[in-house]
Amino acid sequence: MIEKPVPLVVIKRLPRYHRYLGELLKNNVTRISSTDLSEKMGVTASQIRQDLNFFGGFGQQGYGYNVEMLYARISSILGLDKGYKTIIIGSGNLGHALANYGGFANRGFTLTAMFDSDEEKVGLEIAGLKVKHCSELEEFIKRENPDIAILAVPKTAVVSVAEELVSYGIKALWNFAYVDLLLPGDVTVENVHLSDSLMTLSYRMSENKGK
Amino acid sequence: MIEKPVPLVVIKRLPRYHRYLGELLKNNVTRISSTDLSEKMGVTASQIRQDLNFFGGFGQQGYGYNVEMLYARISSILGLDKGYKTIIIGSGNLGHALANYGGFANRGFTLTAMFDSDEEKVGLEIAGLKVKHCSELEEFIKRENPDIAILAVPKTAVVSVAEELVSYGIKALWNFAYVDLLLPGDVTVENVHLSDSLMTLSYRMSENKGK
Repeated sequence: MIEKPVPLVVIKRLPRYHRYLGELLKNNVTRISSTDLSEKMGVTASQIRQDLNFFGGFGQQGYGYNVEMLYARISSILGLDKGYKTIIIGSGNLGHALANYGGFANRGFTLTAMFDSDEEKVGLEIAGLKVKHCSELEEFIKRENPDIAILAVPKTAVVSVAEELVSYGIKALWNFAYVDLLLPGDVTVENVHLSDSLMTLSYRMSENKGK
Repeated sequence: MIEKPVPLVVIKRLPRYHRYLGELLKNNVTRISSTDLSEKMGVTASQIRQDLNFFGGFGQQGYGYNVEMLYARISSILGLDKGYKTIIIGSGNLGHALANYGGFANRGFTLTAMFDSDEEKVGLEIAGLKVKHCSELEEFIKRENPDIAILAVPKTAVVSVAEELVSYGIKALWNFAYVDLLLPGDVTVENVHLSDSLMTLSYRMSENKGK
């Protein structure tokens, strides 16, 4: 389907296109010119044309982009049309926040279970699910085959939890602990390192003041 | 101090160096060779030498890097030696999780207040602070001059909240809502778009399966 390899820098921009196109769809906008899209997104129209060119000739002279088609295509490239079953490990504030985060379900990510090693948390209801004990992980994963495990556990626990999950067959981890996980090559790990983001903010603040 | 302009891609890697060097310091490691650091961090020794060269001649042949000096220098470049006063807007699960996040205080970010527009949340104690009502924002910001506002509010509220904060003098925002904020150029905005990260994970999973 895709004629030429898509550079990583373009891939990194796709979620943002996905988001804007999703909003247009929600507002019943069926087509948009690269100029209008560029104004909405705050990037140049030429970058939009270049980026979207990788995904075939959706832009038509004098017509613009077919929003629905482009949205579907980008969803498919991002794998969002597959439907993923997720589990969350850790039912503290972060796990709780993630369970209630609205942005997932409508992108095809379904939360199927939450786990905690703290007996006091087990049985609590969060986002419509009863928290299970971590001792049930193996049985659950082998039976339900979740696609993604979301790690909302303390830094000190994350390495052993990740290794355990992988040993039960988990192939993708979304990690919020401030630790780089070294796992087999067939396991996909995406880290959300909040402190790195805060440090980037701090750096950019100094830079901004120096202007 | 810095002889040549530091490329953004190197800057982006500094938080990770900062984290690893901080761990070495905590374990009383006073010096480290680029080879040892490269093994720990999973990048090549030559990349480490290239990156750290931007920050002066800290690496000495046969000695390696002085961990404390390098850590201090990177802290200073990232602006972490300044000490920032932060406030959190939104005391839901996410705001709660961020207030209790351990990685901030030891990098010089001090949480000074939390705000919510929900009367029922006002007065609750989170991370040792009593949640204040958003109507107190103007007075608080003008009196206390916080450096950074952390936005843990719903997507529908974030634009107006951000504009309000900026009008009271806030110059830096750490935004967790899934919206791009368009604000004056002297305001620094760092976005944490969790859904973008999840979509990147999804894309990389498809890629990994295709191998």
